[in-house]
Amino acid sequence: MHVLIIGAAGMVGSKLIGRLVADGGLGGRAIEALTLVDVMPPAAPAGFGGKVATLTADLSQPGAAEKLIAARPDLIFHLAAIVSGEAEADFEKGYRINLDGTRDLFEAIRREGLRAPYRPRLVFTSSIAVFGAPFPEKIDDNFLSTPLTSYGTQKAIGELLLSDYARRGFFDGIGIRLPTICIRPGKPNKAASGFFSNILREPLSGIEAVLPVAETVRHWHASPRAAVGFLLHAATLDLAQVGPRRNLSMPGLSATIGEQIEALRRVAGEKAVKLIRHEPDPVIQKIVAGWPSNFDPARALSLGFRAESNFDEIIRVHIEDELGGRIG
Amino acid sequence: MHVLIIGAAGMVGSKLIGRLVADGGLGGRAIEALTLVDVMPPAAPAGFGGKVATLTADLSQPGAAEKLIAARPDLIFHLAAIVSGEAEADFEKGYRINLDGTRDLFEAIRREGLRAPYRPRLVFTSSIAVFGAPFPEKIDDNFLSTPLTSYGTQKAIGELLLSDYARRGFFDGIGIRLPTICIRPGKPNKAASGFFSNILREPLSGIEAVLPVAETVRHWHASPRAAVGFLLHAATLDLAQVGPRRNLSMPGLSATIGEQIEALRRVAGEKAVKLIRHEPDPVIQKIVAGWPSNFDPARALSLGFRAESNFDEIIRVHIEDELGGRIG
Repeated sequence: MHVLIIGAAGMVGSKLIGRLVADGGLGGRAIEALTLVDVMPPAAPAGFGGKVATLTADLSQPGAAEKLIAARPDLIFHLAAIVSGEAEADFEKGYRINLDGTRDLFEAIRREGLRAPYRPRLVFTSSIAVFGAPFPEKIDDNFLSTPLTSYGTQKAIGELLLSDYARRGFFDGIGIRLPTICIRPGKPNKAASGFFSNILREPLSGIEAVLPVAETVRHWHASPRAAVGFLLHAATLDLAQVGPRRNLSMPGLSATIGEQIEALRRVAGEKAVKLIRHEPDPVIQKIVAGWPSNFDPARALSLGFRAESNFDEIIRVHIEDELGGRIG
Repeated sequence: MHVLIIGAAGMVGSKLIGRLVADGGLGGRAIEALTLVDVMPPAAPAGFGGKVATLTADLSQPGAAEKLIAARPDLIFHLAAIVSGEAEADFEKGYRINLDGTRDLFEAIRREGLRAPYRPRLVFTSSIAVFGAPFPEKIDDNFLSTPLTSYGTQKAIGELLLSDYARRGFFDGIGIRLPTICIRPGKPNKAASGFFSNILREPLSGIEAVLPVAETVRHWHASPRAAVGFLLHAATLDLAQVGPRRNLSMPGLSATIGEQIEALRRVAGEKAVKLIRHEPDPVIQKIVAGWPSNFDPARALSLGFRAESNFDEIIRVHIEDELGGRIG
């Protein structure tokens, strides 16, 4: 099979590629070709026996999506997006990349199907940012999307388009609303949610980190390893089971910042906790106050999606996958 | 004030214009200018003392929205849409008119505001077609939008855009989800919901009508007069009361086809009922099966929106407003 990954240079994309290469196949089918696309040059993975193409492309540029789809990939992961903070700061760029880019991709697939029958599997990463306060104690599968950010709006529109294109038979689409991914490896990025990872990742490596919100803030998390698991499961799941509501809130772990810090203390001790500097940021606080904190992801659980059940586990995943099993 | 009505030649648009002209003002402000726009030439209203411009324009054509907004209207009613049946039959046209046309309008307002401060009131007519089965017994204000038609998808996307543009301060926007308007005057149109009106309107004028679904089908209705009332209330309501969730399910009347027919029998007798010919249509049945039948529109009611409470009243409104008070 030929797998196209859009947003391949991002954190989740890179981890997904690593897993696909390690597994060599998906759902019992061998992966013969990988096309990796991002606005920055994606790295070609080591140790893959099949054909690899790495492309630099901006999906929102005219013709970019058509070119990718002309190769008729069997499976498409659409992970590309401008993150929440940036989409809020730059209204036009956010809509161009997150809405137009997504729609151009969907349209390219539909138009390719007009030439000759074509119906790839498409996995779209949406976000819990499609939800906006006030929330019930737990957000269930029937709760409305009223995003309070432009990023959340763009993802919610992507979800609606995905369902309609899937319903019309243009592709076999599924949208998965990722929890906040924690612990993100690498450097802090422009996502307003970055601190959830920073306050664990940096102290685990002996570096100071800034906490811009109160310890009572509760949020919804899953590890990068769990996120890759969601993507692979979404890529192979029987979509007849899913029905017409093609966008699913993924399972995750609901925890407060205080609980995160307690888990850090248990795993890495008081000296790690002392590296967290409290520095309230009203802009971040306002954005985060509009975000969900807890879910009842019954549909995703019944369809076999799985995440971590405590923060010690999330920290251990990071130590295993990023730190070679040791705390620095 | 200057009022712009897009979709002015449609049924709701015409009735709205009639009411605005009769009232001469809105919310205590005189209406000095009316700009009436549609893809078909809208009629200039009789008896209006102010300035009237009637324009033929397709909002989805490049530059069309900018031209309308350059005049900086104070109040904009965006009623224009391809109806459900046509949007389902012609995928590209539905997205072009219902999505691109709406987005172009919103963008024109935002860009006008970049030149010099501008923040008009914008009233957008959405639809209960944003909801898709399965439903709870009554759809409340927290129920998710999972449309099962392209029309519903396009309206749901318009709602999301409206909320985001309003949140960013580009306009004072409010979206109102109209119940199925019953009894629609005039000739049957391409809306899949047309029969709800046809089976009353035609027999009231001594003409045969076709019922393509079972009498047990339950649906959500309001009269054209109630719809105009919703629009005027939305145009003058204090939006601070509404908060960030700017799209509201309007009040209406939940009734079965059987209850409609009983009301017709009470008002117009058995000879009217005998003019309804049962002719099942699987295509219409399938579309209607995915539509909502009952609501708990608590927010709209608390904000002062009002509709009819029984079908006899809906029929009487039609007889008063369309038939000069007499049954033909």
